[in-house]
Amino acid sequence: VEHLIDSEIETLNSLLLTMGGEVEKQLDMAVRALVQRNSELAEQVIAGDAVIDRRELEVDHRITELIVREKPLARDLRLVLSAVKIAPDLERVADHAVNIARQAVELNRVPPLKKFVLLPRMAEVARSMVRDALTAFVRRDAELARQVVERDEEVDAYYEQLFRELLTYMMEDPGTIPRCLALLLIAASLERIADQGTNIAEQAVYVIEGRDIRHPHAQEQSA
Amino acid sequence: VEHLIDSEIETLNSLLLTMGGEVEKQLDMAVRALVQRNSELAEQVIAGDAVIDRRELEVDHRITELIVREKPLARDLRLVLSAVKIAPDLERVADHAVNIARQAVELNRVPPLKKFVLLPRMAEVARSMVRDALTAFVRRDAELARQVVERDEEVDAYYEQLFRELLTYMMEDPGTIPRCLALLLIAASLERIADQGTNIAEQAVYVIEGRDIRHPHAQEQSA
Repeated sequence: VEHLIDSEIETLNSLLLTMGGEVEKQLDMAVRALVQRNSELAEQVIAGDAVIDRRELEVDHRITELIVREKPLARDLRLVLSAVKIAPDLERVADHAVNIARQAVELNRVPPLKKFVLLPRMAEVARSMVRDALTAFVRRDAELARQVVERDEEVDAYYEQLFRELLTYMMEDPGTIPRCLALLLIAASLERIADQGTNIAEQAVYVIEGRDIRHPHAQEQSA
Repeated sequence: VEHLIDSEIETLNSLLLTMGGEVEKQLDMAVRALVQRNSELAEQVIAGDAVIDRRELEVDHRITELIVREKPLARDLRLVLSAVKIAPDLERVADHAVNIARQAVELNRVPPLKKFVLLPRMAEVARSMVRDALTAFVRRDAELARQVVERDEEVDAYYEQLFRELLTYMMEDPGTIPRCLALLLIAASLERIADQGTNIAEQAVYVIEGRDIRHPHAQEQSA
């Protein structure tokens, strides 16, 4: 069987999209728990992680069955092996959402440091990267995937800006250090969520074009 | 073909062990660059990352060929799909080694904060987790894999201890904040290296026993 039947591909796609939607919701709730100082919402994120974990196992199980049944070749096999790698990436995004929720619970116990400006923007870009990378993968849209990879620099710039801002606060008033460290760890989680989005986008390009853009310099030498 | 011929398994194992050895060396050099204040060594780690990236592509390529040629079923397929997930875990360990090397370069530019005690110990445990997890995978040693998973708590305890120690330094003398943040980011990298070791160990148990210990609660409900 050279090409997987459409329904198999559709099933795999919709399973990844379901997982992606759930992960995105976890991240959205975690950021709202922080910005709106809503610890109840944060607890929902922490409790909701089990659903995501279950999805990862489901994707693995489905893919194993699919390979045994369909014995995919060439491009279909690339597609399926990419899905094997995307599920853990999504699961890690959800883990970072839990980290953010945990820090939010701590921060909500003490007076706010200042109004959140950069962090919600950074979160929105990181979240859009994960969503668009997954869309690019299921729709085989290499152009969209490349846009996601480019957006990673934007998130890195937000991280640098936040880092410097928090450093200033800490130096001026050591009483702010514990809160600043919590915010710094949240920013680091968002930065890694963007990295996971980039990973997924790179997998998408690999599936669509058969070309690996993960390590361009390595690629040249290993070809 | 129900079982992969031994030489195929051997080739895949030795490729993963080679990659693992290279990753371990990167991590070892990064920690020595920090402890011995050797920025030249740190630069070697940063430059050496391309070799690891190349290995990940090589593993992917080899696995795709192997599936097409051998059409593995059941346990052999589980083994091969686990290897698909382990290569990116190793690649991320190497990325963290680069992060540590980068922070070391910054720290080596300024006077030392204090003698390193906890950080090298934490690094040694994290490194042993990655090494033992990979050994457990290639030797099909479930007992060793479970020991690795348990050791993650030790690394978390080191992280907590370091976090509190660095917090004290920062509060007492804000002049130490930039250095403390660099050390905190290094500790966070080591903590995530231990997480990657745990991921690999969990994959090993899955391959050996066909049982997924990644998300035990999820497993019950998805069975």
